[in-house]
Amino acid sequence: MKKLINDPANVVAETLAGFQAAHADLVTVHFDPDYVVRADAPVQGKVGLVSGGGSGHEPLHAGYVGKGMLDAAVPGAVFTSPTPDPILDATKAVDGGAGVLHIVKNYTGDVLNFETAAEMAEMEDIAVKAIVVNDDVAVENSTWTAGRRGVGGTVMVEKIAGASADRGDDLDKVLEIATRVNDNVRSMGMALTACTVPHAGKPSFDLGEDEIEIGIGIHGEPGRHRVPMATADEITDMLVDPILEDLKPEAGSKVLLFVNGMGGTPEAELYIVYNHARKRLEDAGLEVARSLVGNYITSLEMQGCSITVLKLDDELTELWDAPVLTPALRRGL
Amino acid sequence: MKKLINDPANVVAETLAGFQAAHADLVTVHFDPDYVVRADAPVQGKVGLVSGGGSGHEPLHAGYVGKGMLDAAVPGAVFTSPTPDPILDATKAVDGGAGVLHIVKNYTGDVLNFETAAEMAEMEDIAVKAIVVNDDVAVENSTWTAGRRGVGGTVMVEKIAGASADRGDDLDKVLEIATRVNDNVRSMGMALTACTVPHAGKPSFDLGEDEIEIGIGIHGEPGRHRVPMATADEITDMLVDPILEDLKPEAGSKVLLFVNGMGGTPEAELYIVYNHARKRLEDAGLEVARSLVGNYITSLEMQGCSITVLKLDDELTELWDAPVLTPALRRGL
Repeated sequence: MKKLINDPANVVAETLAGFQAAHADLVTVHFDPDYVVRADAPVQGKVGLVSGGGSGHEPLHAGYVGKGMLDAAVPGAVFTSPTPDPILDATKAVDGGAGVLHIVKNYTGDVLNFETAAEMAEMEDIAVKAIVVNDDVAVENSTWTAGRRGVGGTVMVEKIAGASADRGDDLDKVLEIATRVNDNVRSMGMALTACTVPHAGKPSFDLGEDEIEIGIGIHGEPGRHRVPMATADEITDMLVDPILEDLKPEAGSKVLLFVNGMGGTPEAELYIVYNHARKRLEDAGLEVARSLVGNYITSLEMQGCSITVLKLDDELTELWDAPVLTPALRRGL
Repeated sequence: MKKLINDPANVVAETLAGFQAAHADLVTVHFDPDYVVRADAPVQGKVGLVSGGGSGHEPLHAGYVGKGMLDAAVPGAVFTSPTPDPILDATKAVDGGAGVLHIVKNYTGDVLNFETAAEMAEMEDIAVKAIVVNDDVAVENSTWTAGRRGVGGTVMVEKIAGASADRGDDLDKVLEIATRVNDNVRSMGMALTACTVPHAGKPSFDLGEDEIEIGIGIHGEPGRHRVPMATADEITDMLVDPILEDLKPEAGSKVLLFVNGMGGTPEAELYIVYNHARKRLEDAGLEVARSLVGNYITSLEMQGCSITVLKLDDELTELWDAPVLTPALRRGL
């Protein structure tokens, strides 16, 4: 294993120390237990947004803490859910009196620990609601999941619900927006290579020299099938087809197309995938009205990509376009 | 070789097609020969900035085309200099009557072809000046270079000279700013793994399982030495020491610290490197006044990083902070 780390046990703490130093204008990091809040938290009268989950998916979630997106992120160990305590601490730290929304990717540990933290927060008279994101069409149940996994759609939920809270919507409305995003977003990913969790020291799974995994999870969980290496266009089809079959967008719909890198993929390859995915959506009569291309929800150094399609309406589009100022996503501020 | 590509011969064209479709609000791509210009080019009365070089370093350079940074980027084939023709076309396309600055990384082919294009442009009465960026302290001469290579400092030159042009400085002043950045910036990189050029089909060089290359070039050219795998802190020292020895910043100086990923490195690892590099600079009595962490000048899927230190003055800081709106870097617009 060759990684730019010191001790595998300190990967998250040292990452957060560097993140704090680099972005002190935007975020404040709390250590032991670890969580990241907006530098100006809590924002009085605004619904607070808290997300979190295992580390190793950077910039998700800490990179999205800031004005117009998350109020707090709670990173667990690599690929490991955070415990309820830091989730509770983060929830209390961002409560500005208007309640808190938990944005939870659908993994069993995350769901349980966020639920526990929410119950504890409610005992302290903080109103908490939760959206469980489950946009991955690859598999119905999975290694760590009952139901569908939450993947790239999480970035859409965090941005759009973040803009909803930022404009002053109340907790019910922010939840309604988040739910609408989750209902209209579908994703599927693939891997060319595996990744290595630092404390494990060896790849999470084995892939042959000429083999790829279609429908991979963001922790390297098995997907739908392994197939021989194929062209970018063929691979793109293997991701777009299941998304369209499931989302069933009416011709004429406007969509956001998000092509995400798994962490180790050259940017150029993502644009090649985007190019064909966009043609496929246009051939299906859809208008690609918004786009996002890059590393936004990763799996350490895994090579591969995921495709996310979000069916837009006017309100979701306006919220997507709203200003945002975070370490990883900034626009108009 | 497993890559998300179709035909190695079409990698650049398909990347640019996707890039155009995703960023049509910001850029216009011309094909055959290939170059990328601001969607609103030429901007009358403004100095035009043109950069370029081999592809495979994305988001450099096309990702930096837009308001406040480059007016045009000219991508060659992967790791191959663009020919003079598209450089000339790009120069003409962005000439708004105030002349054009060429920002050239110091590689023999790039320097020659930009010089030829500049001579051709001058025959068409366009004033052209050039800055050759040579910030890499690793080696004095190299596989493709007489003198030092141009690496991470190029991003600093493009941003800061771009802001100078954007505020209305004339060609001489923009060149002076670009020169001042180049004079005050130093970089050094390292690789954990090699990368594979698509049309070559195999890694550019071999690195052992427990071996890393210190002082690597952005095309995988040899660096200073190969050493056994080390900790992130030790590796960071191997990069920071030569930078400080060469730059010799006075104690009390303000600096910008830029930790760059080579394309295949998880973001968390870059923050671990940043964390120690910052401590080293602070121990040397420097104030890290600005920071940049991420994949900004890459080498395909290479794993590794580079560190860049820019000594700031008030004017460079103000220009660094100025708004910018490009596909890869946006702030305040």
